[in-house]
Amino acid sequence: MNEIIEKNLKTVYETLDKANIYYHAAGVLNFDMETICPPGAMEKQGETTAFLSTEGYKLIKSDEFVDAVLYLHGHLDDAELDPLDAELVKSLYRDYAKIKNLTPELNHEFDLIRNKAYIDWVNAKQSSDYSVFAPSLEKIKEISIKEVTLRDEKSDVPYDDMLDDYERGVTSADLDEAFGQCKERLIPLLEKIKASGKVIRRDFMSRTVSDEAQKNMAKYLLDTIRYDFNRGAFTTTEHPFTTDIARDDVRVTTHYYPNSFTSSMYSIIHEGGHALFGQLQPAEHHDHHIDNEMTMGMHESVSRFYENRIGRSRPFISLIYPKAKEIFPGLLDDVTEEELYEAVNIVEPSLIRTESDEFTYTFHIIIRYEIERMFMSGEAKLEDLPRIWNDKYEKYLGVRPADDKEGVLQDVHWSFGFGYFPTYALGNMYNAMYFNRMKDEIPVDAIVSSGDFDRLNGWMKDNVFAKANILTPKEWIKDITGRDFTPVDFLDYLEEKYGGIYGL
Amino acid sequence: MNEIIEKNLKTVYETLDKANIYYHAAGVLNFDMETICPPGAMEKQGETTAFLSTEGYKLIKSDEFVDAVLYLHGHLDDAELDPLDAELVKSLYRDYAKIKNLTPELNHEFDLIRNKAYIDWVNAKQSSDYSVFAPSLEKIKEISIKEVTLRDEKSDVPYDDMLDDYERGVTSADLDEAFGQCKERLIPLLEKIKASGKVIRRDFMSRTVSDEAQKNMAKYLLDTIRYDFNRGAFTTTEHPFTTDIARDDVRVTTHYYPNSFTSSMYSIIHEGGHALFGQLQPAEHHDHHIDNEMTMGMHESVSRFYENRIGRSRPFISLIYPKAKEIFPGLLDDVTEEELYEAVNIVEPSLIRTESDEFTYTFHIIIRYEIERMFMSGEAKLEDLPRIWNDKYEKYLGVRPADDKEGVLQDVHWSFGFGYFPTYALGNMYNAMYFNRMKDEIPVDAIVSSGDFDRLNGWMKDNVFAKANILTPKEWIKDITGRDFTPVDFLDYLEEKYGGIYGL
Repeated sequence: MNEIIEKNLKTVYETLDKANIYYHAAGVLNFDMETICPPGAMEKQGETTAFLSTEGYKLIKSDEFVDAVLYLHGHLDDAELDPLDAELVKSLYRDYAKIKNLTPELNHEFDLIRNKAYIDWVNAKQSSDYSVFAPSLEKIKEISIKEVTLRDEKSDVPYDDMLDDYERGVTSADLDEAFGQCKERLIPLLEKIKASGKVIRRDFMSRTVSDEAQKNMAKYLLDTIRYDFNRGAFTTTEHPFTTDIARDDVRVTTHYYPNSFTSSMYSIIHEGGHALFGQLQPAEHHDHHIDNEMTMGMHESVSRFYENRIGRSRPFISLIYPKAKEIFPGLLDDVTEEELYEAVNIVEPSLIRTESDEFTYTFHIIIRYEIERMFMSGEAKLEDLPRIWNDKYEKYLGVRPADDKEGVLQDVHWSFGFGYFPTYALGNMYNAMYFNRMKDEIPVDAIVSSGDFDRLNGWMKDNVFAKANILTPKEWIKDITGRDFTPVDFLDYLEEKYGGIYGL
Repeated sequence: MNEIIEKNLKTVYETLDKANIYYHAAGVLNFDMETICPPGAMEKQGETTAFLSTEGYKLIKSDEFVDAVLYLHGHLDDAELDPLDAELVKSLYRDYAKIKNLTPELNHEFDLIRNKAYIDWVNAKQSSDYSVFAPSLEKIKEISIKEVTLRDEKSDVPYDDMLDDYERGVTSADLDEAFGQCKERLIPLLEKIKASGKVIRRDFMSRTVSDEAQKNMAKYLLDTIRYDFNRGAFTTTEHPFTTDIARDDVRVTTHYYPNSFTSSMYSIIHEGGHALFGQLQPAEHHDHHIDNEMTMGMHESVSRFYENRIGRSRPFISLIYPKAKEIFPGLLDDVTEEELYEAVNIVEPSLIRTESDEFTYTFHIIIRYEIERMFMSGEAKLEDLPRIWNDKYEKYLGVRPADDKEGVLQDVHWSFGFGYFPTYALGNMYNAMYFNRMKDEIPVDAIVSSGDFDRLNGWMKDNVFAKANILTPKEWIKDITGRDFTPVDFLDYLEEKYGGIYGL
C-alpha cells in the first residue's frame, strides 16, 4: 500500500479508536442516566457526559484527523484502498462536509436555540398552549434551513437536504409519490373497515397483569427472537429505547403498564428488532467503524419487521399463545388464539401517533410530512399549523384533536428539526418489500410458528443487515429485492391482512 | 493570601476537579459493570474504565500538580492557608509520600503479582486447594513488605505501616491490647452462652419470601433510616456494596435469598449506614476534596452502628415488626416481636465470617489478625497457615473447618495485601463508644422506636461524621466521646445484651 495512504489511514483509525473510548464511556453514562442515576445527580452526570463527548469530538475535529480524511477522500480511486476503508472515508467525509462551513459560534447559537426549543415544547405541551412553542418553532425552521444552505453540496429544496440527513437519497418527490399512493388506497380501505360492522373483542386487553409477569413475558419474547443476552442487557425506562453502547453491548428497555399487557410485549419486540440489527452487524463493519451507517428508515424497517410483520402475524401468535397462558395464569382462559390475533391487530383511528395501530400509523406520518413540507416551503404559516394539523386528522382519520396537546404539540421532534418523521413510514414500506423476497426464499410462516428464529435472523443477516452500512436506501432495497423502491408491497399487505380480519 | 500559595492552590483544585470528572465517569462504568453490563461486554468496558482512571491518575501524577502539593506542604504553617485547604494538602502529601519511591516498573510488577494472586485465589478456593494460592500469597507478603519499607517515613514494624494505610495511627500494639481484652472476656462468655440451654426459635427464618416482597422491605428500611433516594439509587448485585459515585450520588445494592429474608434486611441496613456516612458529609469537605478521608474502621463503625446497634436492637424491632407483618403477609403470623428480636440476635459459632452473627464476628477478625501478624513477622510459615487457621477456629469458637475453602481460603483480601481485616472489628469498638456518648445526650431508644431518624442522623452528622475526614481514629473517637479508645464499651455491650437474651 502507498505509504502516505497508509500513514493517513493509521491516523484515522487511531483517532477513531481513541474517540470511541470516550463515546463508549459517554454511552454508558447516558444509559445510566436513563435508567438508575438519582435525580439529584443528573445535572453533574450530564456535565461529565458532555465532557467525555467533547473530548471525543475534539479528536475528530482535530486538524490532523481532518487532513487525513481529506487526503484519503482525494484518493478514493486508489486501487490499493480496501473497499471498507473507502466506505469509512466516504462516511467521514460526508459528516465533515455537512458541518465544514458551520462556525463554532453558529454551532453554539444553534445549540442554544434547540435547548430553548425543547424547554418551550415541554412547557407548551404541559399547558397545551401552542403559542408557548411557536416562536421557538419558527427559529428551529430558520436554523434548519440555514444549516443545510450553508453547505457546499446542496439541492434546490432545503427540505430535501434535511430528509437526506436521515434517509440518504430520498427526496420529497419520492415521498409525495409514495404517500400519494398510500392515501389513494388506504383512505377508502379505512372507510370500509369502519363500515364493516366487525366487532373485535378487546375486554381482556385491559386486564391487570403484574410487572413481574410482564417482565417474564418480555424476557421470553427476547429469548424467542434470539436477542443475545450475553451481548446485551434489558431493563425498564419511562420511554422504551435501544442503545448500541459497544460492539458487544446492545441494550433494550421497556415499560410495563398494569392494564395493557400487550403494550410491553410489542414494545420489547420492536426494541428487540433494533437490537438484532445492532447485534448481527458484520464483524468487519465494526472493525472499520462503519457499523452505524445504516439510515433511520432502515433501522425502523427492521424494528417494525419484528414488531408487526412477525410479531402481529398469525404464526407468531400461534407460537406464543400457549406460553402467554403459562406466563399470565388465568388471563387468557376465555380467550382463543384467534381472538388474541385480532385484538393485537385492531384498527382504530386515533389522535396519538405513539399509541396508534399498524394500519393507521402511516397516516400519522403523512400528516406530519405534509405539514413539514408546507412549513419549510412557506406554504403554511407558523400560526396556521394547529388548524392544518387538526383538519388533516379529521380528513384522513375522521378524528379531531380537542386541544394542541393531543394535536400539533404531541411529538418532541420539531424541537430539534425536520425530516425525521418520514423514516418511520419508509421502514414499513422497506420491510414489506423484503418480506416478500424472504417468502420467495424461505418458508417464513413455518419458520415463525416453529420458533426457528436462528434461520429467520440468518436470512436477515445475509440479506438485510449485510450491506445496510454501505448502500443508500434505494440501492439497498434493490440489492435485497432486485426491485426499485415502491410502497405497493406494503399497501398490498395491509389490504390483504386487514381485509381478512375485517371480512372485506 | 500569598500569591504563590494562591497559584499553587489553584493548580491543585483545577487538577483535582478535572481528575474527578474521569473518576466520576469511571465510577459510573464500574457500577454499571457490577449491575447490568452484559458478560460479553465486560472486558471492553473494563478497558474503557481503566483508560479513564489512568487519565485521572496522570493528572495527579503530573509534575505541575506534585510540585504544587510539595510547595504547599512546605508552607502548611502559613497562617493564610485555610484550615481545610491545609487538610487537603496533608492528605495529598500522605498519598504522595506513600508512593514517591515506587517506580512505575515496580508498580507494574506489583500489579501483575496482585492480578495473578487474585486469579490463583479464585482457583484455589474453587478447588479448595491451598497449594494453588500459596506461592502467590508468599509474593503478596514480599511486595507488601517491600512497598512499605521503600517509604521515607516508616516504622520498625512493616505490618504497622500496612495497618496504618487502612487505619491511620493504629498499631499492632493497640490491636494486641484490644483483642487481648476481647479474648479474655468473650471466650468465657461464649462458653456460658453455649451452656445456657436457651433455645431460640429459628424455624420461621427460612420461610420463603419473594424478591418483590424483600425489595419492598429493603425500600422501607432505607426510607426508615432516611437514606436520601434523591441522591442515591438502589439495585441488586451478587455481593452487596455501597459506592460514592459523586457528591449527590451514593448508591447501595443488596441481594435477595428466597429462604433468608433477614439477610437482605440487615445487608441493606448495613449498606444504608455506609451510604448515610457518604450522604451526610459536610458540604465544605466535598468542596475541599476531603470528603473521603475517613478510615475504613470509621466507615465500618457507622455501617455496623446502623446494622447492629440500631438494627438489631429491641426498639428497632418494635418499630419495624408491624410493617414486616404487612410487607410479608402471613410470614410472621405465629411469631412474636420478642421471637423476631431473639432470632436476629442468635449466637452460633460458625466457620464463615461473612455469615457470622454480631457476637462471634470479632473472633473471625482476631484470628485473621493474629495470623497476619505472625506471617508478616516470620513467626508463622506459609505452609502452616491452614493448620494455624483451623486450630484457632477450634480454640476460640469450637468449630473446625473441614477444608481450606471454608478455612484459610474463604476471604479474597490476602490476594491484595494485609492489614485490612482489623478495621472491621475496630468499627464495632468505635461505635460502642460513641453509642454510649449518644445515649448521654439524646434518648436513643425512644428516638429509634418512634422512627425519628432525622434526629438520630443529626447527632451522627454533628458528632461522628463532622470531623472524620480531618482526624485520625484516635483523635476522632476522643473528640466524640472525650475518652481514649478502648474496647471496654463494646465488651460491656455484648455482655449485657447477650447476657439478657441468653438469661446469664
